[in-house]
Amino acid sequence: MSPVTRRSLIASAAAQGLVDAAQSAGVVRYVRFLKGGAPAYGMLEGDTIRPLSGGLFANPQPSGVSVKLSSVKLLYPVNPSKVLAVGRNYKSHIGTAVPSPHPDIFYKPVSCLIPTGENIVIPSDSKNTHYEGELVLIIGKKASNVTVQQARDYIFGVTCGNDVSERDWQGGPNKDMQWWRAKGADTFGPLGPCIARGLDYGNLKLTTRLNGQPVQQAPTSDLIHDCHTIVSFISRYVTLLPGDVIYTGTPGTTQKMKPGDVVEVEIEGIGTLRNSVTQG
Amino acid sequence: MSPVTRRSLIASAAAQGLVDAAQSAGVVRYVRFLKGGAPAYGMLEGDTIRPLSGGLFANPQPSGVSVKLSSVKLLYPVNPSKVLAVGRNYKSHIGTAVPSPHPDIFYKPVSCLIPTGENIVIPSDSKNTHYEGELVLIIGKKASNVTVQQARDYIFGVTCGNDVSERDWQGGPNKDMQWWRAKGADTFGPLGPCIARGLDYGNLKLTTRLNGQPVQQAPTSDLIHDCHTIVSFISRYVTLLPGDVIYTGTPGTTQKMKPGDVVEVEIEGIGTLRNSVTQG
Repeated sequence: MSPVTRRSLIASAAAQGLVDAAQSAGVVRYVRFLKGGAPAYGMLEGDTIRPLSGGLFANPQPSGVSVKLSSVKLLYPVNPSKVLAVGRNYKSHIGTAVPSPHPDIFYKPVSCLIPTGENIVIPSDSKNTHYEGELVLIIGKKASNVTVQQARDYIFGVTCGNDVSERDWQGGPNKDMQWWRAKGADTFGPLGPCIARGLDYGNLKLTTRLNGQPVQQAPTSDLIHDCHTIVSFISRYVTLLPGDVIYTGTPGTTQKMKPGDVVEVEIEGIGTLRNSVTQG
Repeated sequence: MSPVTRRSLIASAAAQGLVDAAQSAGVVRYVRFLKGGAPAYGMLEGDTIRPLSGGLFANPQPSGVSVKLSSVKLLYPVNPSKVLAVGRNYKSHIGTAVPSPHPDIFYKPVSCLIPTGENIVIPSDSKNTHYEGELVLIIGKKASNVTVQQARDYIFGVTCGNDVSERDWQGGPNKDMQWWRAKGADTFGPLGPCIARGLDYGNLKLTTRLNGQPVQQAPTSDLIHDCHTIVSFISRYVTLLPGDVIYTGTPGTTQKMKPGDVVEVEIEGIGTLRNSVTQG
């Protein structure tokens, strides 16, 4: 490969948020992408994708064929039956409030999911739409009444998420009864760029950047309710299925976004989820 | 057909909640059922089902083959990408509270749906699980930013629903932050028995019975926010897709259920959704 081609490929992978110098041994990264117009899963190897046969969860088998990462449109990395999220899960986010004795769960609709590279659209009548960078869990097998100790076996991998939130609909004097649009409006669920399997997701550095400036920084070890507690608690009431998605909560404080902003959520070992902001 | 066979078929259809003396002209009813182990849609004709080719929404074509209703296992009548619901939407339910200026929306997860005939399971640590009989809308085509006037074209049909609700998790001193398990625990979404298309769903009589006794009765004309307003309002923020489900709210007051109870939600022209209650 010529140096120019190599630089160009690395630049493209960087543009897709998938170059990471510190890839650990034993960590595998998967993407979902458009292949001949249809969604397909693939295993990431440097700048190339090896499409999977056998599905992502049951028995993923990378084929011998390679596709250039730079040549494909990335999709959000899994197509879930449902999306759950945890509120108030970092001490740095809840301030002086008392943490809940169990995870505070809510739903985002699957229709709000967008991949890296697509625009977050601020609804036309919104005045206060914020980013929330988060670690996101991808469930790997059907989970009902699993214990905290068993939960690790049910988490397939992790990705980055932005739990976009309209604060005036979420709280305050004119808040909605529930968070259906505050957390669920179209494009309010950026997810990606890939699923990393084999990471120690209990202690990863999460950074959110607004127009290049770090605005949220925390290790995932700061979660009030850890990933295994979250999965176990949900599964006592609501059965989780392979591909289901759980946003685990956001650290620190957040700010309002405006059209033209670029928001990035980077988690070490996974990559960077990057979305621009437009006005609806 | 012998009188005995005929009585037996009618009894079976009655058991499945699908005998209704007052079928109106122009109303078509669809069911989803297990056919050779796989889900299939069919058009209901008396005691028989004519399986559809072409899917339910795009171009449903009943085949010439007939399947006896009594011979199949009914599924909940559609497999949605998401389930929405409206709270506080009958004056008889909200009492002296001031109605909201727009519909109060929340999500139920698709994992809580069950068909007629399956058991509602009260979670092991629940002390206050109630029925809520409701009219339910089935979306027929992708809906984004549709007006109230356009909304009729996006509603494929209607069915019966039971928006099962755990009151201690929903409200009161120990309420959850959001209604994720109060409205979304496994089995909390009975739906069916069929989808009726062509009904005037703006004025149908809804009756909920607990162990045979009527406990909720209202015409759907009592809805505070009518069906078209609901669809239009949701679609301003959240894109609706074919098959998506919207529970429209419950009238009057509700009661706690106990193991062994039988709850029926009957809506004229649709049929009866019937579920027994067990303890988890």
